[in-house]
Amino acid sequence: MQRTDVNTLGEFGLIDHLTQGFTNRQPTTVLGVGDDAAIIDAGAEQIVVSTDMLVEGIHFDFAYTPLKHLGYKAVTVNLSDIAAMNARPEQITFSIALSNRFSVEALDELYAGVQAACKQYGVDLVGGDTTSSTKGLIISVTAIGRAPAGRITRRSGAKVGDLICITGNLGSAYLGLQLLEREKAVFKDNPDMQPEMGEYAAYLLQRQLRPEARTDMVDLFAKEGIVPTSMIDISDGLASELFHICKASGVGAVIEESGVPIHNDAQLQALEFNLDPITTALSGGEDYELLFTIDPKDTEKIRFLPDLYISGEIVAREDGIKLHTKGGNIHPIQAQGWKHFE
Amino acid sequence: MQRTDVNTLGEFGLIDHLTQGFTNRQPTTVLGVGDDAAIIDAGAEQIVVSTDMLVEGIHFDFAYTPLKHLGYKAVTVNLSDIAAMNARPEQITFSIALSNRFSVEALDELYAGVQAACKQYGVDLVGGDTTSSTKGLIISVTAIGRAPAGRITRRSGAKVGDLICITGNLGSAYLGLQLLEREKAVFKDNPDMQPEMGEYAAYLLQRQLRPEARTDMVDLFAKEGIVPTSMIDISDGLASELFHICKASGVGAVIEESGVPIHNDAQLQALEFNLDPITTALSGGEDYELLFTIDPKDTEKIRFLPDLYISGEIVAREDGIKLHTKGGNIHPIQAQGWKHFE
Repeated sequence: MQRTDVNTLGEFGLIDHLTQGFTNRQPTTVLGVGDDAAIIDAGAEQIVVSTDMLVEGIHFDFAYTPLKHLGYKAVTVNLSDIAAMNARPEQITFSIALSNRFSVEALDELYAGVQAACKQYGVDLVGGDTTSSTKGLIISVTAIGRAPAGRITRRSGAKVGDLICITGNLGSAYLGLQLLEREKAVFKDNPDMQPEMGEYAAYLLQRQLRPEARTDMVDLFAKEGIVPTSMIDISDGLASELFHICKASGVGAVIEESGVPIHNDAQLQALEFNLDPITTALSGGEDYELLFTIDPKDTEKIRFLPDLYISGEIVAREDGIKLHTKGGNIHPIQAQGWKHFE
Repeated sequence: MQRTDVNTLGEFGLIDHLTQGFTNRQPTTVLGVGDDAAIIDAGAEQIVVSTDMLVEGIHFDFAYTPLKHLGYKAVTVNLSDIAAMNARPEQITFSIALSNRFSVEALDELYAGVQAACKQYGVDLVGGDTTSSTKGLIISVTAIGRAPAGRITRRSGAKVGDLICITGNLGSAYLGLQLLEREKAVFKDNPDMQPEMGEYAAYLLQRQLRPEARTDMVDLFAKEGIVPTSMIDISDGLASELFHICKASGVGAVIEESGVPIHNDAQLQALEFNLDPITTALSGGEDYELLFTIDPKDTEKIRFLPDLYISGEIVAREDGIKLHTKGGNIHPIQAQGWKHFE
């Protein structure tokens, strides 16, 4: 029998490959595989469902991840997918597989984080599974949200001329991870050494360890009477998410480097690491901000909204996906977001 | 810091412990943690959601589990939870974490099983996550179903005097597993030996490796105008599920040994293993049949329905949970369904 290594297809190629033979049969299935969440009909409203797995040693490292933060983050990264559909999250299920290395007290810490996230976002824990693993901790979360049918925003609606917008700021979570990895390496060499995170660490570590979901934007869009034409959450870096939007919508994009929001602490930390700040925004992951497009007629509605930046424009597919640098050059943006199967 | 081993609480104790601090805030959350599935309001209908994790080395063993059967079973065990709510399954999400030991061809086999189950039950695959693991394969499935609000059946509605019913037959899946484990041990000792499953194997192995969900009973109940007063699927053995129903409903139960359906091949295989057939029904798991209670006024409606057996009666809580044996003795039934964290 032929043996094709899973890495030859890449993460997204593998998902496409595995799901291509499936046909939807249920009249209630509005949208299946391929967006941030599935859409299920529920009368005047629609239900959106999204699910994620987090694996110890792949997605988190207990050398520097407090259990409570992990519980919080496992929830918020799923709520972020619901926000990316322009829907409000309402319920989650939270499942764990664990070895007996974990004590009840450790699990209590984990669930305290889950509970803090449920409280923060007003969502209910409605189910889950608790079982054994042969190695480490594996978390699986499913988030369920809801929106009026006309407000749900997919990846596929971007049109030529639409403005590209980004919430918050990008690159900080990646730089937070670099700080943690650096101090982990120092600690390995000399366990007596105290960690020296540096002056920009407070903000960057919070962005990495305890990210928030931009459900506030869903409320803001509703209040301002805006429905984005397309939207995705930025979990794998701006470049990767832009590719998803462009592929699903059949368009190209030009991003203005000067329009990509990067926090001051991230700017300074990037320079300390000899990294170009824009690279951390394009290729660093886990910011969980929203990337969306709006019809230019909504420009005035959006121009003065807080924590929201106009960063580029949708162009024709044949014009590709490009970055207009501060120096005036045009560079093609490379696809990122590759997960390697170990 | 105190360190309490997770095994001190037991599986169900641990779930109770971890979820006790959570409060529901969403008006759409009809029922949260604690039944086969959560219930979410969707107007005239309600949405039910259930989730399960399957871990290699804990829930399945590739020494004798074909990948296609595993994919099929991972789906059907979740659909069984939806059927146990008296709801019709409509959508699933299917997530995997895997090491690079798995080829694309192996995953194709797995997904062929998922697809066969989707086709068999008319459900749609609407999402999932595909990521790396550091060891083995972990599967997480979430199933979503729907029913008119008045038809949804919880664990908590059993009343004194209700009849206890069981679908299909019990113990076969457990005996199938014993056959597989026996032949695995023989193969370990002598890899040249051909497996000798014996004359009852065909049915028992099918029950273990490729179980079905009793969604047909949901249709049958609708057709006959019956709403069970309580229901649960039998994944951990009759004893364990009976305890869940009795605990949730605040009642006791008497089971007639002569009323517990056991397949002829299971009867004969049990004797070959020197096991009492009733023990395999009470304590063996993975039959995925339904255990439910009905109001005695529905007796005539149910008496002649196919593949459905009246096996006992709900009694007062203080009368306990008991087995009336064929020999005329009364034995208390012990709680089972313990998962050990390794």
